[in-house]
Amino acid sequence: MSTSAPSQARILSGVQPSGTLHIGNYFGAIQQHIQLQDSQAEAFYFIANYHALTTLRDADRLRELTHNVALDYLALGLDPAKAVFFRQSDVPEVHELAWFLATITPVSLLEKGVSYKDKVTRGIAANAGLLTYPVLMAADILLQQASLVPVGEDQVQHVEFARDMAGFFNNAYAGGQEVLKLPKAHFAPGKKVPGLDGQKMSKSYGNTIGIFEEGSALKKKVMSIKTTSVPLGQPLDPENDTVFAIYKLVASQADVAAMEADYRSGAIGFGHAKQRLHEALDKHFADSRDRRKELEKNPAEVEAILRMGAERARHTARVTIDACRHAVGV
Amino acid sequence: MSTSAPSQARILSGVQPSGTLHIGNYFGAIQQHIQLQDSQAEAFYFIANYHALTTLRDADRLRELTHNVALDYLALGLDPAKAVFFRQSDVPEVHELAWFLATITPVSLLEKGVSYKDKVTRGIAANAGLLTYPVLMAADILLQQASLVPVGEDQVQHVEFARDMAGFFNNAYAGGQEVLKLPKAHFAPGKKVPGLDGQKMSKSYGNTIGIFEEGSALKKKVMSIKTTSVPLGQPLDPENDTVFAIYKLVASQADVAAMEADYRSGAIGFGHAKQRLHEALDKHFADSRDRRKELEKNPAEVEAILRMGAERARHTARVTIDACRHAVGV
Repeated sequence: MSTSAPSQARILSGVQPSGTLHIGNYFGAIQQHIQLQDSQAEAFYFIANYHALTTLRDADRLRELTHNVALDYLALGLDPAKAVFFRQSDVPEVHELAWFLATITPVSLLEKGVSYKDKVTRGIAANAGLLTYPVLMAADILLQQASLVPVGEDQVQHVEFARDMAGFFNNAYAGGQEVLKLPKAHFAPGKKVPGLDGQKMSKSYGNTIGIFEEGSALKKKVMSIKTTSVPLGQPLDPENDTVFAIYKLVASQADVAAMEADYRSGAIGFGHAKQRLHEALDKHFADSRDRRKELEKNPAEVEAILRMGAERARHTARVTIDACRHAVGV
Repeated sequence: MSTSAPSQARILSGVQPSGTLHIGNYFGAIQQHIQLQDSQAEAFYFIANYHALTTLRDADRLRELTHNVALDYLALGLDPAKAVFFRQSDVPEVHELAWFLATITPVSLLEKGVSYKDKVTRGIAANAGLLTYPVLMAADILLQQASLVPVGEDQVQHVEFARDMAGFFNNAYAGGQEVLKLPKAHFAPGKKVPGLDGQKMSKSYGNTIGIFEEGSALKKKVMSIKTTSVPLGQPLDPENDTVFAIYKLVASQADVAAMEADYRSGAIGFGHAKQRLHEALDKHFADSRDRRKELEKNPAEVEAILRMGAERARHTARVTIDACRHAVGV
């Protein structure tokens, strides 16, 4: 018995619907993930709304977050003509596979999960969903027979778990045949983005700039970036400055070179530098903002995109699940 | 938002496909469970083949056991015109509900599961399936909105867990509304059946009489029942005798009264008593044996019965799952 595993490499990436995205999220991960849709491999993206339930119990909020993250990704360039984009809950087969995997996953493995241990340490009540989260994540990956999973450092272990589980499953139920494809983590370190206070940009530090912020709100944020006290006319150090660090991410090479020269010559002060950063930021995300506003007006279009993606994802899912059912004997 | 919970009481009973059934299983539980199909309540029976995977990794064997337990129950009188009889794996929606329940079930609750603790103590490698077994069992029950679950003493705790989880779910996701019906354990202590050696009849003691045994195999088993040494012609004690204890279960009231008189008067020896028991046993299960042989020849009929049951069970499952998806926000 063998499955019809895809001959083409397949990339799978899950997105938690967790709230307003900031430019740290974008340059740290989203940008690289979306670019993968242009690689040789087939790219699958899904919104992990089942996973969100381990910590969120507000149906309206979850529906809103799920819709918003769809808007965000589509606005930022995810192209449904190039990639398969779906909602996790539109492929409920994932839970059946998760059960098959649970039967061959030692509890001790799950207890080693860094994300679980971390949450428990932080006093988050340990529900069974948190403990078995890596099983569901493995099922997400293995159900789509993904070969590559782009992840941040904190998720590398979970992809290794998925790889382990695929191996356990193939050995326990299929005499070692590759019913489930063994995935690999694709660890693409993203760009580091400092927050308004110079620390790493992070929602929990309250130092973020939203990707879709604009107008006076955006300007106010940029103007509040913490800088050193250097008298006007003195040279500024581009290597140790938050304004310049962010500018490098959003401005053209020529503009960056010009600003660097102005920093070093003392021709520019922080107020002026912030104005340039504001303009560059505003321009960088202008198309995405426009596209997002359009999509906001057309929830039916977004829904149609997700349903089309779900149809394709569900097709792969059925092939995998049928092979697994046969292998386990149900 | 409210679910269309059944107005009629519903009974749900799961059967593990675990091998050849013996008369201890029958008089201890199966008989009482099957009789529930004649109660006022709707009766749902399912073959728990997903559960079996926590300990069985042999697809052919599992398929065989699953088919056999269907034959057993149908042969023993389960009537698909009165009860809904289905295979657990034909209603995969159960796993989606299990995930919803996992998100509100404390890991600490699962660690208290007596069945889990017992298995771990006995050195059975603790896989995640064993730990989360009560979550899947709760999902079985709650998916069908069952109000009563007939169980043996060892499963009462698991039904209480299911009740707890239904309450947690309704509170966490539905503001206390009864999206999931709170079930109760129906603890109907079965009849005690001694084995060939006088201990409790149990597969693990190797002292069983199979329900469908017949001919010389059955006779040999009955003749091997351990009795006391009482010289022929002396009275026998019906209160402390395995032969009589089993005879009471399978013979008519009149025959039991006659044998009791013969015991007390010394008119009968154990050899003769065993012959009467053999005849009574043979007769008691004759119809079931015949029906089983017929069904064995018609696997398609068995399959059709299970599919019909699955269709009805899946209908209820869809109603519950849709209500749950709405409540959690996916």
